[in-house]
Amino acid sequence: MNGAQSLIRSLADAGVEVCFCNPGTSEMHLVAALDLVPELRAVLCLFEGVATGAADGYGRMAGRPAATLLHLGPGLGNGLANLHNARRARTPLVNVVGDHATYHKRLDPPLESDIDAVAASVSGWLRRADAVDDLAADAADAVAAALGPPGRIATLVLPADLAWTDVSWSDAPAVGVPGAVEVVEQVAVAQEVVAGAAAALRSGEPAALLVGGAATRGEALRAAGRIAAATGARLLCETFPARLERGAGVPPVERLAYPAEAVAAQLAGLRHLVLAGAAPPVSSFAYPGVAGDLVPTDCQVHILAHGPEDLAGALTALSDATCAGAGAQLLAPERPLPPTGALTAETMAYGVGALLPEHAIVVDEANTSGPWLPGATAGAPRHDWLTLTGGAIGQGLPVATGAAVACPDRPVLCLESDGSAMYTVSALWTQAHEDLDVTTVVLNNGAYAVLDRELRRAAAGEPGPRARELLDLSRPGLDFVDIARGMGVPAERATTAEEFTRALGRALAEPGPRLIDAVVPALV
Amino acid sequence: MNGAQSLIRSLADAGVEVCFCNPGTSEMHLVAALDLVPELRAVLCLFEGVATGAADGYGRMAGRPAATLLHLGPGLGNGLANLHNARRARTPLVNVVGDHATYHKRLDPPLESDIDAVAASVSGWLRRADAVDDLAADAADAVAAALGPPGRIATLVLPADLAWTDVSWSDAPAVGVPGAVEVVEQVAVAQEVVAGAAAALRSGEPAALLVGGAATRGEALRAAGRIAAATGARLLCETFPARLERGAGVPPVERLAYPAEAVAAQLAGLRHLVLAGAAPPVSSFAYPGVAGDLVPTDCQVHILAHGPEDLAGALTALSDATCAGAGAQLLAPERPLPPTGALTAETMAYGVGALLPEHAIVVDEANTSGPWLPGATAGAPRHDWLTLTGGAIGQGLPVATGAAVACPDRPVLCLESDGSAMYTVSALWTQAHEDLDVTTVVLNNGAYAVLDRELRRAAAGEPGPRARELLDLSRPGLDFVDIARGMGVPAERATTAEEFTRALGRALAEPGPRLIDAVVPALV
Repeated sequence: MNGAQSLIRSLADAGVEVCFCNPGTSEMHLVAALDLVPELRAVLCLFEGVATGAADGYGRMAGRPAATLLHLGPGLGNGLANLHNARRARTPLVNVVGDHATYHKRLDPPLESDIDAVAASVSGWLRRADAVDDLAADAADAVAAALGPPGRIATLVLPADLAWTDVSWSDAPAVGVPGAVEVVEQVAVAQEVVAGAAAALRSGEPAALLVGGAATRGEALRAAGRIAAATGARLLCETFPARLERGAGVPPVERLAYPAEAVAAQLAGLRHLVLAGAAPPVSSFAYPGVAGDLVPTDCQVHILAHGPEDLAGALTALSDATCAGAGAQLLAPERPLPPTGALTAETMAYGVGALLPEHAIVVDEANTSGPWLPGATAGAPRHDWLTLTGGAIGQGLPVATGAAVACPDRPVLCLESDGSAMYTVSALWTQAHEDLDVTTVVLNNGAYAVLDRELRRAAAGEPGPRARELLDLSRPGLDFVDIARGMGVPAERATTAEEFTRALGRALAEPGPRLIDAVVPALV
Repeated sequence: MNGAQSLIRSLADAGVEVCFCNPGTSEMHLVAALDLVPELRAVLCLFEGVATGAADGYGRMAGRPAATLLHLGPGLGNGLANLHNARRARTPLVNVVGDHATYHKRLDPPLESDIDAVAASVSGWLRRADAVDDLAADAADAVAAALGPPGRIATLVLPADLAWTDVSWSDAPAVGVPGAVEVVEQVAVAQEVVAGAAAALRSGEPAALLVGGAATRGEALRAAGRIAAATGARLLCETFPARLERGAGVPPVERLAYPAEAVAAQLAGLRHLVLAGAAPPVSSFAYPGVAGDLVPTDCQVHILAHGPEDLAGALTALSDATCAGAGAQLLAPERPLPPTGALTAETMAYGVGALLPEHAIVVDEANTSGPWLPGATAGAPRHDWLTLTGGAIGQGLPVATGAAVACPDRPVLCLESDGSAMYTVSALWTQAHEDLDVTTVVLNNGAYAVLDRELRRAAAGEPGPRARELLDLSRPGLDFVDIARGMGVPAERATTAEEFTRALGRALAEPGPRLIDAVVPALV
């Protein structure tokens, strides 16, 4: 057994079921080892940003890490933006980055670069493997680190010569073989912290409970809903949840807005803000003369739980302390009517709300085309909503790909802006290759509309013609029907609300990937 | 005048004529400033890897830096692989990376990450701007650093609040305005070094002159040709030249091969290897039991010139010392006949050789489909050949884009593998947007053929079915005609040598971008 085989075997033994791969020469022994470990499914991606984004989507839905297989520093670089998003999502994820053989690096071959420095910028755990007999343990340690709590990115850098060298323990696999995953327990929140939060929420002063991380779904969210119903506190969630449970039968949650001014309006008048898995709200960007810290000055922040702490346990304890068994308000089933007339960001949202299937996974990179989506889908059948956690666009198509791999029985709907789609568009090929049930709606407004808005806002004035040209995607227009077909994904265009709703219904009804090029006007 | 305006103004004053842009919110003041500085042409790219690769292609052809405009750490990450290639090409290049406002970073907003660590991995010069009044000088220093010698990547990180703050010297622009570009002179090579190299080449023992960097073209290459003709030394060039001048009327140069075994055969028997701008040959990757240092053990290495030294001056001096005015052997005009029959890597090469226009710029990422290209084009009209300097695939389409911006009067031919094309395929949109005269030939063999070869070689055996699946791009096949049309580039498919030659002739005759999806069998 060589090092590559022991590493792949150990990943599988540690519960890793999928590896999103974009390998190169230095990873060939790892690729060869995949044939010996059929429990680990290899999914080919044509670009590393697709592999890392897919691993993010997988980890958000599966709650355990997928692996990636990346080729040296440049491969890691190509995957970096979606690793950034995964880091912000607290997604468990294991990167295996191949490196040159240890003795080859000093020759400074063409692909040599500082992998460790780049990897450290996104990794909560980083190790450069240095002994072939330790590779199985390295892999197990990486999985344990990725699982957290909370989830994090674990990166293992693997020199090629360790991959192809035989391990010394392979004749005696039962004796002293390293590789058990030691999962770190979540830390329980102290009772006085719970009591302090309960007192704040019951103070009679305006209060809100802000959930983030793992508190945006499941038992934690239900406990939060009960707390809000019993205390009258508002139930908020962070601007970019990794995975927000929504729909009929789920407690209603008010998601914080993106523009700083809108968040300030949402938080105005609050005297107490209780945080459960969320950081104090800040604006995504600074603007001249606008505050970045969005907590009102006379609002007291109470941290109920964060980081490695047991969010669900803390919220359950807070629920017990505040509501004595009372139930949460839950959203009633309600759908908009199928829209008619012009296709716009608004009618698109009604079409989605009218048709969203039960247990759907919605990957939302709709950006400026998205403002009507929360309202239009609030009463749809129960679903999960995955957002652009780190702000690095190009996340949607890959995350949808990985979510579909994690949940083959659930329909995935990816709402993707045209500009963002072009960063990682080859994810469509992987969807076709793996026959994943993903419906992609590209919101094709022919512009970087978000930047048009930001330009006016930040630069405080009407942009000039040369600045405007940098926000214009219409010369030539992008034809996503052609682009999708070129990668084997059936596609059609929709230019009216009726066309869109029909196309969406067809795409959701069919298995396998489909794309709808939804032509909408830009909202500025 | 705000900081952004002073920076853009200073870049233009320092001779930067083009900025390849993929901006975000934190760069909006820079975008707005472009309207005030029309000398700096902004070229929109839909992905940062296109912007950095285009800046590489521009810098290789123009000999002076283009700028890039990148959005925070994730934008830099997306551009990193082609910055790696540019670093290996010694291309002058100036990155401007926007960052959060200085006071905003401590809030850890979603897009915050360690820009400096990532930038340092590819930059020969790195500065974080910290005073608005210094931005003009920062920009000039970056340009000076990029110019080298030799060329390098200079990265300036610009916090948003410096961009929008007014400079204090704007009312008195003639007094104390910083911003002059102080270009570092090339170091002359000592006469005894030249004499040593001359003695080696005239020793009567087998000898070769290996050129790299700026010695692969122009006067330096002509001097190298004279030296080879006069001394009988072989004239070699590095495996991956940034820009190799070739064709009729140019001295013949034997390019080092990619496989280590082939290079070993090329260098076998040499007793002297004189290096001019090239490093001692090493293999791109290590393989079990194969040496990585490819210089024969009994071969003496003589470094004539490298790094910041005056390559052309050193080679001219060496020419004067060895050949007393004798001329170089120059390649005679010679073209293959237009090919007929099946379209293969071989007949594709003859089609290129038959039609390559004078002054063409060939961007070569043909990889495994490329072995017949050097022979088929050796006697074509004079042209430049740009290669994958850093080994990070996805370089071809962007480099072709930038080369076309740098040289609007020269035809650009991009020979691109299918797998590599998918990394940065949105470069086609920029070619359409800017109406660049680029003919792209995608060598569509439906496979990562290079990895099939490497897998057998590295893993020493027949790959299993799961490993082979990771090298297969044929399920579904990529249709580059559809993909190109989706981005506004006219395209057609060629499946025979005749179809290919006709399509290539048409594409080269037409202005603006064209793509040929050339279906060829994989060579394994």
